[in-house]
Amino acid sequence: MSLAVGVIGTGVMGAEHARLLREQTAGAHLAAVCDADEARATAAAQGAAVFTDAHALISSPLVDAVVIASPDATHAGYALACLAAGKPVLCEKPIAATAAEGLAIVQAEAALGRRLVTVGFMRRFDPAYAEMQAARSAGRIGNAVLLHNIHRNLSAPEWFTGAMAVTNSFVHEIDISRWLLGAEMVSAQVAAAPGGDPMMVTMQADSGAIISTEVHMNAAYGYHVHAQLVGRLGTVEMAAPTRVLTNLSNAQSFGFPSNWVPRFTEAYRLQMQAWVDATVAGHSVGASAWDGYVTTSIAEQIVEGMATGGQVALSFPARPALYD
Amino acid sequence: MSLAVGVIGTGVMGAEHARLLREQTAGAHLAAVCDADEARATAAAQGAAVFTDAHALISSPLVDAVVIASPDATHAGYALACLAAGKPVLCEKPIAATAAEGLAIVQAEAALGRRLVTVGFMRRFDPAYAEMQAARSAGRIGNAVLLHNIHRNLSAPEWFTGAMAVTNSFVHEIDISRWLLGAEMVSAQVAAAPGGDPMMVTMQADSGAIISTEVHMNAAYGYHVHAQLVGRLGTVEMAAPTRVLTNLSNAQSFGFPSNWVPRFTEAYRLQMQAWVDATVAGHSVGASAWDGYVTTSIAEQIVEGMATGGQVALSFPARPALYD
Amino acid sequence: MSLAVGVIGTGVMGAEHARLLREQTAGAHLAAVCDADEARATAAAQGAAVFTDAHALISSPLVDAVVIASPDATHAGYALACLAAGKPVLCEKPIAATAAEGLAIVQAEAALGRRLVTVGFMRRFDPAYAEMQAARSAGRIGNAVLLHNIHRNLSAPEWFTGAMAVTNSFVHEIDISRWLLGAEMVSAQVAAAPGGDPMMVTMQADSGAIISTEVHMNAAYGYHVHAQLVGRLGTVEMAAPTRVLTNLSNAQSFGFPSNWVPRFTEAYRLQMQAWVDATVAGHSVGASAWDGYVTTSIAEQIVEGMATGGQVALSFPARPALYD
Amino acid sequence: MSLAVGVIGTGVMGAEHARLLREQTAGAHLAAVCDADEARATAAAQGAAVFTDAHALISSPLVDAVVIASPDATHAGYALACLAAGKPVLCEKPIAATAAEGLAIVQAEAALGRRLVTVGFMRRFDPAYAEMQAARSAGRIGNAVLLHNIHRNLSAPEWFTGAMAVTNSFVHEIDISRWLLGAEMVSAQVAAAPGGDPMMVTMQADSGAIISTEVHMNAAYGYHVHAQLVGRLGTVEMAAPTRVLTNLSNAQSFGFPSNWVPRFTEAYRLQMQAWVDATVAGHSVGASAWDGYVTTSIAEQIVEGMATGGQVALSFPARPALYD
Repeated sequence: MSLAVGVIGTGVMGAEHARLLREQTAGAHLAAVCDADEARATAAAQGAAVFTDAHALISSPLVDAVVIASPDATHAGYALACLAAGKPVLCEKPIAATAAEGLAIVQAEAALGRRLVTVGFMRRFDPAYAEMQAARSAGRIGNAVLLHNIHRNLSAPEWFTGAMAVTNSFVHEIDISRWLLGAEMVSAQVAAAPGGDPMMVTMQADSGAIISTEVHMNAAYGYHVHAQLVGRLGTVEMAAPTRVLTNLSNAQSFGFPSNWVPRFTEAYRLQMQAWVDATVAGHSVGASAWDGYVTTSIAEQIVEGMATGGQVALSFPARPALYD
Repeated sequence: MSLAVGVIGTGVMGAEHARLLREQTAGAHLAAVCDADEARATAAAQGAAVFTDAHALISSPLVDAVVIASPDATHAGYALACLAAGKPVLCEKPIAATAAEGLAIVQAEAALGRRLVTVGFMRRFDPAYAEMQAARSAGRIGNAVLLHNIHRNLSAPEWFTGAMAVTNSFVHEIDISRWLLGAEMVSAQVAAAPGGDPMMVTMQADSGAIISTEVHMNAAYGYHVHAQLVGRLGTVEMAAPTRVLTNLSNAQSFGFPSNWVPRFTEAYRLQMQAWVDATVAGHSVGASAWDGYVTTSIAEQIVEGMATGGQVALSFPARPALYD
Repeated sequence: MSLAVGVIGTGVMGAEHARLLREQTAGAHLAAVCDADEARATAAAQGAAVFTDAHALISSPLVDAVVIASPDATHAGYALACLAAGKPVLCEKPIAATAAEGLAIVQAEAALGRRLVTVGFMRRFDPAYAEMQAARSAGRIGNAVLLHNIHRNLSAPEWFTGAMAVTNSFVHEIDISRWLLGAEMVSAQVAAAPGGDPMMVTMQADSGAIISTEVHMNAAYGYHVHAQLVGRLGTVEMAAPTRVLTNLSNAQSFGFPSNWVPRFTEAYRLQMQAWVDATVAGHSVGASAWDGYVTTSIAEQIVEGMATGGQVALSFPARPALYD
Repeated sequence: MSLAVGVIGTGVMGAEHARLLREQTAGAHLAAVCDADEARATAAAQGAAVFTDAHALISSPLVDAVVIASPDATHAGYALACLAAGKPVLCEKPIAATAAEGLAIVQAEAALGRRLVTVGFMRRFDPAYAEMQAARSAGRIGNAVLLHNIHRNLSAPEWFTGAMAVTNSFVHEIDISRWLLGAEMVSAQVAAAPGGDPMMVTMQADSGAIISTEVHMNAAYGYHVHAQLVGRLGTVEMAAPTRVLTNLSNAQSFGFPSNWVPRFTEAYRLQMQAWVDATVAGHSVGASAWDGYVTTSIAEQIVEGMATGGQVALSFPARPALYD
């Protein structure tokens, strides 16, 4: 009765998902992996079935449910194949390389009439974000009027553009802001420091709340994500991201991780467990295909607006009833 | 050789300045106070001379130097009188009720050819801000590219408008941002939550640095000022504003003050001592008349821009050489 | 190939272990539960086999490995039965109600010649303690010379004695201190506040390191565990035990849990996963039967010393080679 | 009406006291300094009268009140001379090199019938300690039952003995513990790590409260003082001793000072101001001669006890009524 999961892609994230399924998840097991690089697939499989063709994995009777962790450009095609096969899928963000492709998935799922797609916005499962969302939902801080986000990466390659900072990094804040606030975004505006990095992105939600985000690709000192939610009664924010403090060499300190994997280790595990539990129980959890599409669309509209400057009024088609 | 100081206005701040001169300042003494309310003036004087006419205090031979803490509308007139009398003056912010009046003080001082006016932007003397400025100046965080400010007041009266939030509260961030960054502001833009409070003000400096400020008149939980300066190498920010932590009733906590006086007690004392020391030594310290004028002008230009929305390009006349 | 685990006792901790096996542990499943109260056992079983006789569960072919979470007085008997049956066992602390019974388990296991017993000192799996231990082991703080422990419970019943504070609560610090320092205890001394609570227990290790522990049964404000390890180069300690901070009602705060279950949720899960993994792999993990015996013996010797006052010189029989 | 203060000794602390009187203290001025090294005295005097004979300074009509900051062995003699001259004196700790000499000062002052001696236990004026004391006095944490002190010095010379750690460093905790708890010490016991450093000193007060102190002469990472007061309702402790936090080089950190002068800068200033204010007003403030004597006596009794080991029962002669 253990859920048989197949993982497509065995790069950093795919290998991590495979490991979670083998070592840290109850009620599921790693049934198959797929990678064009068969040696890499075999290494990640550790005894599970090995595929080099993702569509073969998706349609295989060995596999009950699918995790997509292949390159971004392939996400939409595999997600559609999962829908066609009627198999639940956890797709790494983004759901699609373009909003148009994302919308096609939404439409396919809406036509199918049941939700099979979860987009891997793992921050929703981070205990700190989850406590913040719970505090707001419970009314502890009153109506939310502001959200301060900080998203700092250690460094980015030379060829990393401001557009990529939006579609690749800031997209996490788009999703988590919608989720923390329980509101949809209606406008966005970007201000950039010299060279384009860091940027301050100011969005406004349909609730009137303002979302202010520092997107920083070359923060130099470490990977650092922070958020503070401000309500009419008070605020709730992340505590210092550490479990221990050291006093050494004239200073008290704690260390930052160099990327998101150590920072969100627990979120990835909790996401996988929650997805397996929901899949076995026949319902859905986490970011939906609609969330995945909207997030990609907002990022796309912001990037278009950056070319001309000024404030971008965000718009989307009507949301299918499946996502109510 | 103790500096004889006269204080104009004996409201909350005037009484505090008088107390500092009597009890906490070396090298000076409270020589006179002035208030239209003679009883209140007498109470604050504690033996010093009492005036009910500010111009009489300014011109009195009993007084070597003047502190202006009377209502905002009177600042400019008294400051000009001090310049006419050739007496050093520490003027509570704002230097003037309008930019035009502020510019008149700048021009008078420039004509006089020596700096006698200090504007009481006391945050420059706050040890936390001072450490942040020193860290940036010393190059410890690399070139500064971002400044995050938070300015939260417990609550404001019903009649307090968004324009007043800019001219009365945000004006502190205008000054401290210019000082922390060592740069001039070139543009500003405001986004407001429902009802106009809180606001996010995004400014950009001539260095390219972005200044992002939450101005919040009804933060509900306490008076809270925070700043984080972001450079190419790292960041420096204020630590939690407390000296002790308590564990009580299921929580660890520390308390916030209800207004700026307890938060900036040490800054006010250090400002007074520094001003007395500089005055006795014959040089100037703190925010100049030019700083006071520019700050008032920026606030005024932002308020004008709020009527129409969109980004405001800030402009000023040429800075007199006296302020180089 | 999933490990079939039987849980004896379905009180608070037994129910939690059963839940972990059902919902949060990879590679194992809840095969059986046992409780004299059959209704309670059935509720915890959620479909697994139900026993009312622990010895029947231990010898059942349905069960590969056993978790003991029944009342303390029964631990030793069930642990010996597991050894007799050749089944791995995770036994809640204490291993036995008396040192003599604990020693009998050590001798039985030594006679068997392989380690089947793990004592559930879950703190060893707490990420904060684990980081502290790793920092010391890696030499980051130099040779450890001091350990400060704080162990505060919200409140204890009237009938809770100082002896129980040692055998029930402080026993956790005995184990974790030995593990953090990698050293054995050689002496102990107790000082008590009026009424016997709180107590300061000062131990010294064979390495010379001093272990200073506040044992506080009625701390009133919450359940709070803290530790700081001091070495010749510096220190490492637990950070504030929270993920979020709130600003509300004039204060910044975070909450304390009311007991050890929420505080050590992650430690219990990691302990169960590690024990399952080790059991499947055929080796042992966590606190051994010897650790369980020594810890119980030290607590017993301290309690005996409390009657007479003064310092207690701790002594043990020779450690069997199985535990080298 | 400015108080004319003479400073004896112009080493590190004497020079600092002279600076405070010149630059940071209202209502007083530096009237004279004394040092056997006339050049050093002249440098510190900055225009004030220069003496090379302390007794000449004490009896000089130029001097209303005296600060003693000369070598420890000279304190008692100068303090007695101040009493003989009827002049208020702020004496750096210790009041005397031996308890016997300290008692002689107490007796001389009691015979005089008015309090002229303040011992410079400046920690009483540290804002963090003062907030802790105020929290306890106001009943916010209930009856105090425990006090945890940490006193870490960066490093000590080779010849620094455990006895000196008690009489030179721990003496500060003796005074502050008595003051924080409002209680007298009745017993003490010392445990030492290998080489004698660090030590854990456990005292008990007549209120039954336990005082547990780490005295660490070679903490290696910086100068660090911490205290936590534990009451029946909760605790109050020092917050992290910093105003700013930096994120740099993979870590968040703040720096420790290398000695007590930067850590207690504000305490020294507030002590001087409070002493000047009290002196002018004709009453006394801070640690009395009795406090200075008892503190020295406790240190002496602890050192005697270290030779034999075990717990020391502390005893003192009756306290003269002058100190009620």
